[in-house]
Amino acid sequence: MLALAMRLKLTIQYDGTDYHGWQVQAGFATVQGCIESAVASVQGEHARVFGAGRTDAGVHAYGQVAHVDVVKSLPAHTWLRALNANLPRDIRVFDVEEADGEVHARMSARGKHYRYRVWTGRVVSPFHRRYVHHAPHPLDFDAMAHAATLLVGRHDFEAFTVADRETKTTVRDLRRLDLDANGDILDLNAEADGFLRAMVRTLAGTLLAVGDGHMTAEGVARALDSKKRGLAGPTAPAPGLTLVRVDY
Amino acid sequence: MLALAMRLKLTIQYDGTDYHGWQVQAGFATVQGCIESAVASVQGEHARVFGAGRTDAGVHAYGQVAHVDVVKSLPAHTWLRALNANLPRDIRVFDVEEADGEVHARMSARGKHYRYRVWTGRVVSPFHRRYVHHAPHPLDFDAMAHAATLLVGRHDFEAFTVADRETKTTVRDLRRLDLDANGDILDLNAEADGFLRAMVRTLAGTLLAVGDGHMTAEGVARALDSKKRGLAGPTAPAPGLTLVRVDY
Repeated sequence: MLALAMRLKLTIQYDGTDYHGWQVQAGFATVQGCIESAVASVQGEHARVFGAGRTDAGVHAYGQVAHVDVVKSLPAHTWLRALNANLPRDIRVFDVEEADGEVHARMSARGKHYRYRVWTGRVVSPFHRRYVHHAPHPLDFDAMAHAATLLVGRHDFEAFTVADRETKTTVRDLRRLDLDANGDILDLNAEADGFLRAMVRTLAGTLLAVGDGHMTAEGVARALDSKKRGLAGPTAPAPGLTLVRVDY
Repeated sequence: MLALAMRLKLTIQYDGTDYHGWQVQAGFATVQGCIESAVASVQGEHARVFGAGRTDAGVHAYGQVAHVDVVKSLPAHTWLRALNANLPRDIRVFDVEEADGEVHARMSARGKHYRYRVWTGRVVSPFHRRYVHHAPHPLDFDAMAHAATLLVGRHDFEAFTVADRETKTTVRDLRRLDLDANGDILDLNAEADGFLRAMVRTLAGTLLAVGDGHMTAEGVARALDSKKRGLAGPTAPAPGLTLVRVDY
């Protein structure tokens, strides 16, 4: 029996704390795995779910986008309800749309916005603890903001990533990298046409190294030019990172 | 050996999701129990911790206040660090002050502010799921706000509590009960000289019953006059409730 497939575009939020990242891995709870299980529960048949960003273990999403070709013909709002009924509460589908068969969550994406959240107060609020990186020492925001301007633009970000055989080029257009301080929270906002593996966390770790005086703006420029991972700052921890939005 | 006691006033935040409430109960994880364990770890001796509000299982605190008489003489900021080092991350001491021996966290309190948070959107955000009650059906905010005005003031709130032999009078001065709607979130803010057991959750459940058309403003006034628990609305679920502030 032949069933006509329908492509769905899903907008998804998740608290990544308890997951080994987006991508399916045998023996581990992953976000993609949970969504594929939910799809299989609804239509009685497995279907691959393609995400726009393969977030790492412990990373969150406010607006992850994924597509999936389903064989059960249900209205979009029924799919939304049925998927959520089969998902744990820390993963929620916020929107389901029927999509053109040409639309690919990752390949059609024109840009992404990630936020790296730092808790700068002395004591981390229990209500924020899962979504922040704690930096209790004073940070020089001006120095960080200046260093950020040196990274914005179309550059080879090889120094800010880890080896990844799936990536053809390490050139990316970093359209935005700025700071937004509000009380005990410091947000680093990064927007680009796409990000390399661990790139946002390395940008964040580098700016934090500037903030606490371990690196200078000149050191950041040198790291970018060198294309050597060893010259950039450390990879900031996963919990501070959230995929905010994917643009099409 | 006689040690001179010092009274500490603690300001505490907690995510109550994984606790059986504030009050120590044998065999259960409670917030008071965790703080008493932390005190004992720091000074090598047990001390009773007195909280301003005995929050129920699953209820949160943004600004709980407690006092404790300790025998180890350390500066307040050292107590703060040492207590947090011995507490789970979902309970944090935000402030420690030396207090007068006459100050009692509960008996000296002049007022309390509780917030009951309702998620009114179709899908509950994973980032809010532990701290809201989901009411996905349309609510008549105007009717709720009007009913709230009938409850404000000095009244006998016997219809809005459960039997509690420790309570001498069920008269309370409800100074504030109002709604604050912001996107998918509806906050009910309640301030009084003190609250009876389950009172905020019963006020919230009653206003929600008005909002979805199960009760009228007249029914709310009748419940208040009757002093009969059966005439008020249901007790709203614990996760939406947060003790915001205690005033002295």
